[in-house]
Formats: sequence, C-alpha cells, structure tokens
Amino acid sequence: MGKTNQGRFFEDYSVGDVLTHAVPRTVGAGERALYHALYPARHALYSSDTFAQSCGLTASPLDDMIAFHTVFGKTVPDVSLNAVANLGYAEGRWLAPVWPGDTLTSASEVIGVKQNSNGKTGVVWVRTTGRNQHGAPVLDYVRWVMVRKRDIDAPAPETVVPDLAKVVAPQTLVVPSGLTFDGYDTALSGEPHRLSDYKVGEQIDHVDGVTVEEAEHMMATRLWQNTAKVHFDTSARPDGTRLIYGGHVISMARALSFNGLANAQMVVGLNAGAHANPCLAGDTIRAWSEVLDTAETSAPGVGAIRLRLVATKGGAPFALRGEDGKYLPDVLLDLDYWALMPT
Amino acid sequence: MGKTNQGRFFEDYSVGDVLTHAVPRTVGAGERALYHALYPARHALYSSDTFAQSCGLTASPLDDMIAFHTVFGKTVPDVSLNAVANLGYAEGRWLAPVWPGDTLTSASEVIGVKQNSNGKTGVVWVRTTGRNQHGAPVLDYVRWVMVRKRDIDAPAPETVVPDLAKVVAPQTLVVPSGLTFDGYDTALSGEPHRLSDYKVGEQIDHVDGVTVEEAEHMMATRLWQNTAKVHFDTSARPDGTRLIYGGHVISMARALSFNGLANAQMVVGLNAGAHANPCLAGDTIRAWSEVLDTAETSAPGVGAIRLRLVATKGGAPFALRGEDGKYLPDVLLDLDYWALMPT
Amino acid sequence: MGKTNQGRFFEDYSVGDVLTHAVPRTVGAGERALYHALYPARHALYSSDTFAQSCGLTASPLDDMIAFHTVFGKTVPDVSLNAVANLGYAEGRWLAPVWPGDTLTSASEVIGVKQNSNGKTGVVWVRTTGRNQHGAPVLDYVRWVMVRKRDIDAPAPETVVPDLAKVVAPQTLVVPSGLTFDGYDTALSGEPHRLSDYKVGEQIDHVDGVTVEEAEHMMATRLWQNTAKVHFDTSARPDGTRLIYGGHVISMARALSFNGLANAQMVVGLNAGAHANPCLAGDTIRAWSEVLDTAETSAPGVGAIRLRLVATKGGAPFALRGEDGKYLPDVLLDLDYWALMPT
Repeated sequence: MGKTNQGRFFEDYSVGDVLTHAVPRTVGAGERALYHALYPARHALYSSDTFAQSCGLTASPLDDMIAFHTVFGKTVPDVSLNAVANLGYAEGRWLAPVWPGDTLTSASEVIGVKQNSNGKTGVVWVRTTGRNQHGAPVLDYVRWVMVRKRDIDAPAPETVVPDLAKVVAPQTLVVPSGLTFDGYDTALSGEPHRLSDYKVGEQIDHVDGVTVEEAEHMMATRLWQNTAKVHFDTSARPDGTRLIYGGHVISMARALSFNGLANAQMVVGLNAGAHANPCLAGDTIRAWSEVLDTAETSAPGVGAIRLRLVATKGGAPFALRGEDGKYLPDVLLDLDYWALMPT
Repeated sequence: MGKTNQGRFFEDYSVGDVLTHAVPRTVGAGERALYHALYPARHALYSSDTFAQSCGLTASPLDDMIAFHTVFGKTVPDVSLNAVANLGYAEGRWLAPVWPGDTLTSASEVIGVKQNSNGKTGVVWVRTTGRNQHGAPVLDYVRWVMVRKRDIDAPAPETVVPDLAKVVAPQTLVVPSGLTFDGYDTALSGEPHRLSDYKVGEQIDHVDGVTVEEAEHMMATRLWQNTAKVHFDTSARPDGTRLIYGGHVISMARALSFNGLANAQMVVGLNAGAHANPCLAGDTIRAWSEVLDTAETSAPGVGAIRLRLVATKGGAPFALRGEDGKYLPDVLLDLDYWALMPT
Repeated sequence: MGKTNQGRFFEDYSVGDVLTHAVPRTVGAGERALYHALYPARHALYSSDTFAQSCGLTASPLDDMIAFHTVFGKTVPDVSLNAVANLGYAEGRWLAPVWPGDTLTSASEVIGVKQNSNGKTGVVWVRTTGRNQHGAPVLDYVRWVMVRKRDIDAPAPETVVPDLAKVVAPQTLVVPSGLTFDGYDTALSGEPHRLSDYKVGEQIDHVDGVTVEEAEHMMATRLWQNTAKVHFDTSARPDGTRLIYGGHVISMARALSFNGLANAQMVVGLNAGAHANPCLAGDTIRAWSEVLDTAETSAPGVGAIRLRLVATKGGAPFALRGEDGKYLPDVLLDLDYWALMPT
C-alpha cells in the first residue's frame, strides 16, 4: 500500500508546519442547489439573487457553510484521517463571500501540539485558511483534534498550547464589502424580527425536525470531498453504523434555525463548537438557539448577533448539560457563532 | 416560541387578502440537474439546449414543474402549515418559461372561504401567482385547502365560494413566445407520435415504475423550500411515516409519462388535480394517461393535448374509481392538464 | 400499449443499421456537482478550474465518466431494453473534453450479430459515438450485449463477429488540445507519484470503501437518463432487489482509485470491461488496481498508464478469479483503461 495515503500521526506534526491541502475545488450553481436539497435552507440572501442585490451585493453568494465545509473537507486527509476526536473550534471568521465559480484552496498551519498523558495520542491545533482563486482569504479558523501516535515510543514534543480567544471580538468581524440592510425587506426575508427584537438570554425553539437518511449525509459529505471512512463504510466502525459528519449536523441545525432566526442572514464568526454526541441515520435533528450577545457594525443597518445553536436528536429544548456538567445524551452540537442581522 | 411561525388558521383568512410569500428563489443549472436526478425526466425540450433552439427558444427552459414546485413551496408557510388536506387545483396556466438564473417570487390572493359544518375547520381558496425577477407572471393557479380553526368559537365568516372553470379554455393557453414545432425532430424527441396520432378517449399505460426512497422525496421537497413537517419528521404523524409531498408524485408521474407521451412537451395548463391517497417511501409509482381533448394553437405546428394523468402505487392500469365513486386505494394522483404537442 | 417503446429484439438488428438515440442532453454545473455528491471524486483536473488551467485547459471539463454515462444512457432504449446481459466493451476512446453547457447526442452502428445456439437469444455488437453540439465526436466505443428474440422461430441472421482490438493502441489515444503536465503541481493534485513511479505489474489497494444506498444509485442512473426497469422498480426482478447500474460501480471504483492513483487524471481509453457480478444496495464497494502498461504521448509532460481497475464488494484485494477461471463472487467489475498521467 505504498502509494496510498495513510494520513499523518501525532508525531508528524510540528508547530510552524504549513500543510498545503490537496485538490482545489470550484464551487457553483450545482453545489448551491444541492445545499438546498440537502438542508431546509431558506435564508433569503443565499436563496435569491434579487434579495442579495437589494442588500448591496452583486448576486447571491454561496452559503457560508459551503465555504466552511469545502475548506474543512480539504483538511481531512492531512489532519483528521487518524483523528480520534474533533475537539473544538475557535477564532473562526468568514472574510469574503464565495461566489459561484470561485475556486477554493485550503492550507493549515500547526499552531499547537500536546501529547496526552497516556502516551498513545496527542492534541494538534491547526489554523486553517481557505482562499479563493485570487489568493484572497475567505475563511480562517482554528480547530484542534486528538490524533493517534504511529509509534508509542516516539518522544513527546515540547508542549505548545495556543492562546485562543473565547469569542471573536465583534469589531473584528468582517462585513462583506457593499453590504447594507437599509432597504431590508422583512416580508421577503420571512420574519419581521430585527436585532432590537432579540434580547440577550432569549431562547428560541426552532420547532421543526428532520429525520436524516444515510444517502443524504453521504452525498453531503462527499460533496465537500471529506473522505473520512467512518462516514461511508459500514465496516469502519465495530457496530456497523456510519457516523454522520459533524458538519452535516451544523448545516441542518443552521437551516432549521430559519424558523425564528430568518434574519440572522450571514454567518461571519465562529467562536466555539462541540460535537457533543454522535449522530446516526434515523435520528431526527431538532435545534434551539440562545441569544448570547449583540453588537454593532459599521455597515448601514447591519448589526451582529451572537448565538448559541444547539442541535439535538430528541429531548426537550433548552436542556444542554446534566448535573455532572456533561452534555446530555440527546445533544448533538453546541455551536457559538456570530451572524449579521438588520438592526 | 414567540419568534417562530405558527402558520395561519382558518379565521386568519379574509377574501381579498393578498399574502406576499417569503424567500424569493433563484433557480438554475443545479435545480435542473437535480430534477433529472430525482425524476426520470426525458422530455427533450427540457433536456437539451439544442433541441429547445430547434423549437425557436433561446435555450432549454427549466422544467415547468420546477416553476410549479418553487412557486407552490413558497405558499406553504402562509397557506398550508395548518392545513388538514389539499383539496384541489383549478385554472392553472404557465405564462412564461423559467430560464436558468431567474428569481421567482410568489403571492396569493384569498378568493374564497367557507367554514365547515363541524365548526372546526374551513376551506380556503387562494389564487397564487409566481413572478420572475422582471415582475412578469410565470404561473397562475387556484388551490383550495382545508384549514383548522385556531379558536373553535371564532365566528364563521361569510361564505364565498369562487366560480372556477372546470377546464382552462384552450384559446387562453399561453404558448411561449417564439415556439414553433415546424422543424420538430421526432427521432431526437424519442417517439414518432404527433397530436393527430392521439384520439380522445385513448388510454396509455406508461409501463415503467419507480420505487421511491425517503432520501429522494425529502431532497426534492426541500429543493422547493417546502417545509411542511409531515414530509421530514418521523414524529409528525402517529404512525411514524413521512408523507410524500404530492408534488413529488406529480413530477414522478409526468416523467414516467414520457414513455408514450414523449411529445407532450410543455405543460401549459392545469385544469384540476386530486391527491387521491397518501404516498409513502417504498411505494412503486406507476402512471397511465387518458386523452381528454385536443386543440389548436396559433403557433406554427403547435397543438394542445388535454390529458388525465393518473399515478398509482400498484393495481391495474386504467382503474380509477370504485363502484362507490371513490378513488381506488392504489390511486395516488388524478391530474388534468394541457400540454403542447407537435401537430 | 401501442404508444410505448417495447424496445428492440435480436431480430430487429442488422449489421450496418445506424440507430439515432433520442433525447439530446445539455450537461453542466449541476451534473458536475451531483457527480461529486454521488461519488468520492477528487481528481484535481475535474474538481478545479484553476488546476485545469494550470494544465493548459480553459476550464475544468466534466468528468470523463459523465460523458460515458450520458452517451451510454441514451443507448438503453434502443440497445439494452431487452438485453439479458451486458457482455463487454472494447475500442473505447475519449476524443474531446465535455465542457459545462455542451449538449451530447448519441448514435450507434450495428457492427455484429450472432444468434446463440439456444435459438432464444443473440449477441449484438454496436459501435456507439457521442457527439457534442458542434457535431464533434467526444467518445467512441464498442459494446456487445445479449438480447432476447421476440420470435423464437425468426430465422437466424448471418453471423458477423467484429474483429476488435484487445487494447487501444496508445499512439491512437487522443490527448486534449492544449494539455500539458509540465507545470503539474503534485501538492495540489494530492499525491507525489508520477508515471515513472509506477511499475508494470504493480498492484494498489485503494483502501477506502463505500456502502451504497438505493437513493444514490437511482439518482445517478436517472441523471444519465438510463431508464432500464431493473434499476428502479422492485417488482422488475423476482427477488425484489434493484440491480445497480454497472456504470455506477465504474464511477465509484474510479473515484476510490484516487487514493493511490490521484495523478491518473484523464480517462482516455477503454480497452475492456466486465461486470462480473451484480451489485445491490448495502454492498460496500472497494477497489484495487494493477498497472498493465505505460506509454508516451506527444503532449508536454503527459504520459499514459494502462490500468486494470477491479471493484469488489468485500474479499481480499488482488483476488480476481477462482481456480475455475471464473470471477470470484465478490468481484463486481474488471475494467481495463488508459489514463493520462504526468511523466
């Protein structure tokens, strides 16, 4: 098997390494339509050229999560092929819209390593940047994963744990050039609620649920060229189940959040995220949100809302952790992000 | 749940109300490809730019049912979220082709209300119009649904039952500008049969069947941004099944009807339609048609054929109703439409 | 059922007949995205406009298998509706890239007929050519199928067995105009291995597996407008299973072969192919390859590699035939093709 990629192990990462991820990807009208077929996505800015134009953009950009999944998918062969767990995200910012026809590349810098006390695994932190065909960054985020060692006797590297912001400072969020919500039409966007209608601490049950199927999550995950075996091959896990890509749950929950957050249009910051429990075909994904903060931006009529987005596979809304402080078994995702909303 | 849409109830509709449906939608090459992946669609005018150009069009338009489903899907949050049943269609006309890149919006006028004698529900009639980004109407049809009352004690409105045509008069059908079938190539279209080869009363068994899967009907229904719970959430119905969107059956049957009606190219009128029985994943959809009428148009070589299209989930072709006058249990759809066909 | 297509039977084919297959098809950005959703396709030339441009092309062409499936699909109603078995392929050459927006047509010439000794079936050989909207051939291949006779008493035709090349001579392979691998970037393509790194006789286990679902293979097969009943209708085969289109297995195996053959970029020749055993939903498709030959081309930096691509549904890699010379029961596909690779 000398020609095939066995992936990197913990001892293959050194702080400062830059990994150029393979297979640039041109995304366009097809990915856009598939996104709408795979998720109940309805945010008007990503559904309609005319709505996007009324917000000062030249056309409807591709969904922010298409950018995220595409950039993330490219990292899998270099970062997570031998990963035991995807531990967290931080300092994520969307830096420019992705337009149909853009070609995305992805590269990651290793910014931290820490061997675990068991000596069998370690944690690797990478800062991943996605760029378009002009070399302009479209997305930047930190992810850390637990990775197996190839050789248990390999010496532990010097521990470097990066100092990461708990929250992306709202003044550093990037508002797309030209964006304005001054002429924002709430009849067409689907809901009347503006930023001032949301209060910090407010919780919203998004009501709807989607029971997920194997064919859907595999199509989605392949679309992002994420090839981790556990998503596709029933022989990859002892119980014969296929683990659903965590990003599929993110997109499903974000789409479901339209019902109550139709005007949280653009995702611009990723503060934190945890895939709390595995999701499998047959699960019915539901979602609820909590307003964590609001902020101003310098763009006309454009504010920012910080949201906790929780996906569950049942159970009551608004329940997150048990008395032991651990995520409840029905919780799939706990995501902390910034979105742009009309003021 | 103050931020989420609870939908309208019977007493929320008044004759003369105009409902602007949210989330305009740009449709294009991706929706076109997905339509071909989800249905065995083969009508040449919607498959090939060159064939469409040989018929006088600038390019291949999107399938007429893409227009219908997109316009219909937008009405769901305002019209059918609390609907008990979709009762009928009438006076439907396709008014202009939808081209890749067009943005569709949808609005409905309430044209009738009638409370049922049980006092718990009522029937609402709406005339829905889909428009493109130029404001030009692309589709117009009447639909009536049975809707729950929120408050059983709310007073009954004055009954208004609209006077609807049983059939769209053929002289009012709109033939797309420039369309000609004078150079129509039956070798490329797939069948030699022209309008004069079909006789009123003739019945055609379309032979082929498709066993439907959950992933497929959910992808289709999401693509049209139709978010009715019963299609997606196994907990929405007592028996845990997901009801297949009636429009999925329409598109499947229309696509199957290629085999015998390959030259019934463009759907231009919707006279009536009934979703006779629920369709579920695992059902094998088959279709048969009956020729109801033929007519002339003013376009070169272009005639019109009125067809009954029946979808079934088994049973013998050409059986529609039992001795009691009710649809047989295997009948899924009884659709009455006009299509354009070379003379 | 006088209007529907019953398909041709053995006695309907005569050597020299040219069959014009119906329903030209425009393919584009949507088909491209669906191809990436249905298969784990990652070859950089088909994923990225910028990568394709660095190889001298104007943009990323559609995957070579999209051309194959589209051209093949059109032949089904005329060639394989009454086929008992798809027996083989030979002399296949890709003659020009297919670009988004191209419209493909397909025609076949009957080049051989041979009635079987049982008198009930016969073998038909056809040479199929796919052309684009400019009339330029994009693909040419020979296929032979076993077809039922309509009338067992029909006289046997004179036997004509075409003389077919065992291998497409490498000097006749067509390299797309402008293609150069002189600036080929192996960091972006995903693997460092060039033609000189592969040795004749070398075998590569592609490691990954994909468990296939009904919804996926049906969507793929419909996308190519291949309407053979056995792929869609659970009542078409005695055991209620849906037979997966052999081309679905070809595309899945080719995509899986990225892992070890990431630089076998363009498929340009089809020497032979056998669908060894049926594939059904639930099977986990794996693949292995064997290097059969290498050759030069006149294009800068572009060599050719001849590969055997074997798809299995389990079992050990590199096992192909039993002691009886027959394919092992786990073998799905044995394909012999030429691809272009940087030297």
